[in-house]
Amino acid sequence: MKPYETQVLVRFGDVDAAGIAYFPSIYNLIHDTFEDLWYNHLGVSYADLIMKQRLGFPLVRSEVDFRKVLRFGDRPTIQVTCEGVGRSSLHLRYRFFLGEDLALDAHMTTACVDMDHLKSCPIPEAYRKVFLALMEEGSQPHA
Amino acid sequence: MKPYETQVLVRFGDVDAAGIAYFPSIYNLIHDTFEDLWYNHLGVSYADLIMKQRLGFPLVRSEVDFRKVLRFGDRPTIQVTCEGVGRSSLHLRYRFFLGEDLALDAHMTTACVDMDHLKSCPIPEAYRKVFLALMEEGSQPHA
Amino acid sequence: MKPYETQVLVRFGDVDAAGIAYFPSIYNLIHDTFEDLWYNHLGVSYADLIMKQRLGFPLVRSEVDFRKVLRFGDRPTIQVTCEGVGRSSLHLRYRFFLGEDLALDAHMTTACVDMDHLKSCPIPEAYRKVFLALMEEGSQPHA
Amino acid sequence: MKPYETQVLVRFGDVDAAGIAYFPSIYNLIHDTFEDLWYNHLGVSYADLIMKQRLGFPLVRSEVDFRKVLRFGDRPTIQVTCEGVGRSSLHLRYRFFLGEDLALDAHMTTACVDMDHLKSCPIPEAYRKVFLALMEEGSQPHA
Repeated sequence: MKPYETQVLVRFGDVDAAGIAYFPSIYNLIHDTFEDLWYNHLGVSYADLIMKQRLGFPLVRSEVDFRKVLRFGDRPTIQVTCEGVGRSSLHLRYRFFLGEDLALDAHMTTACVDMDHLKSCPIPEAYRKVFLALMEEGSQPHA
Repeated sequence: MKPYETQVLVRFGDVDAAGIAYFPSIYNLIHDTFEDLWYNHLGVSYADLIMKQRLGFPLVRSEVDFRKVLRFGDRPTIQVTCEGVGRSSLHLRYRFFLGEDLALDAHMTTACVDMDHLKSCPIPEAYRKVFLALMEEGSQPHA
Repeated sequence: MKPYETQVLVRFGDVDAAGIAYFPSIYNLIHDTFEDLWYNHLGVSYADLIMKQRLGFPLVRSEVDFRKVLRFGDRPTIQVTCEGVGRSSLHLRYRFFLGEDLALDAHMTTACVDMDHLKSCPIPEAYRKVFLALMEEGSQPHA
Repeated sequence: MKPYETQVLVRFGDVDAAGIAYFPSIYNLIHDTFEDLWYNHLGVSYADLIMKQRLGFPLVRSEVDFRKVLRFGDRPTIQVTCEGVGRSSLHLRYRFFLGEDLALDAHMTTACVDMDHLKSCPIPEAYRKVFLALMEEGSQPHA
């Protein structure tokens, strides 16, 4: 298992009056990372996934620990692993590292939906395989 | 126990290409509600709290269930209750209702910090009392 | 001529590391005001305008003078007047006041478009009349 | 004169219910470009400029023509040129191209300010030179 890894920049528009990341902006960075994962790792732009394939992944559940503040100008490394893939649910984990330190640990469960009716639908097999390859050792695929 | 209650509007800038709220925008609505809680219920503007009293409440942990999508133009009612107040930690619950339906259930743990050093500090007694009055029945105040 | 008048709050999420409004957030406040103008003054929610009537008002040209910074916690009064209504173009002016001081002066030209094809279409007569009633004295309606 | 050139992605969080960029998000893309210009072209991270050198560049005036909509997934090329450098004012032009088409033309005037007092101060000579090298032919440096 090799996680998908990327780096983001905490920008001027992301920080608050204390110069640390405003938390809704952090969720935005998580979504940016999800989009880039599709493009770089699954080989489809998120725009095509949504607009042409008409598949979306709205958030169903989120559990996030904020361990260290992210400051303006920080460039955290983000590791994305998979904690399970159900028929239509996708469990991803995003860890933000500042150097060796775990700054943020996010568990995000999304549901695969048909964008025309916003109803859940199966994750296409080709995508499922790529997500399974991001499974953490010891994790069990969700039923 | 009477929860703090308010209503928000899901605006044009909050929704995505499917016309439903982009989830980072939902966290923004939660923060707006937290700010208004300070102003309307604790009697201090959030700007004064941060800039004059130099107290902030960065997010430490968040757990959110997204049960129903929020659509452009929806006006969910938000109920805020308290699930515990520690020395410097504050556990609030935000429930978004669309009519009778629970659309979103968020548990947000924040830490009271001194804005000059970003170190945790005790929640002032006057504020603690107001939060305790928002305790849900059956909840135990955190140690 | 009586301008449409409202008040907004510069929130925590709107300000930058210096505690002043990040300018993209100011454009967001302008859009919020436009939405509220529809609801409060034209009697239609912006969501219904877009989703049901399928009319939108994308920005075509914007000219803004930022005269005084808006700070975290400020509650500027916004006056909206009309500088002209064409067949499908709408010229609105937004002035942000802090007390007596003009903090921001924005001229925003939007085009009325059919949301299904994103092509320009005539502004419905009922709406045109309301905008004309917001005309500044001395302004000429655009051809 | 060779403009600074970069490319941005119109992301999921940038678009509205019609799948086109919400205009406050476009101003955010302009600011992102300004930050990257500092890092890539002037050799200083925007965070260091603000937090260590205590220099900021708040917007004073903005004039933008939106010629073509930017859609979800578009990757416009942005060319930045300089239209003038005053003692403390900086006039930059941002042109967004979709292929050969000019989609957006933005003239942004910012003032160099001392972040501790938010008062205007001279643009350091080393930076002025770099901006002058981005001058468009035929433009006159502002007094």
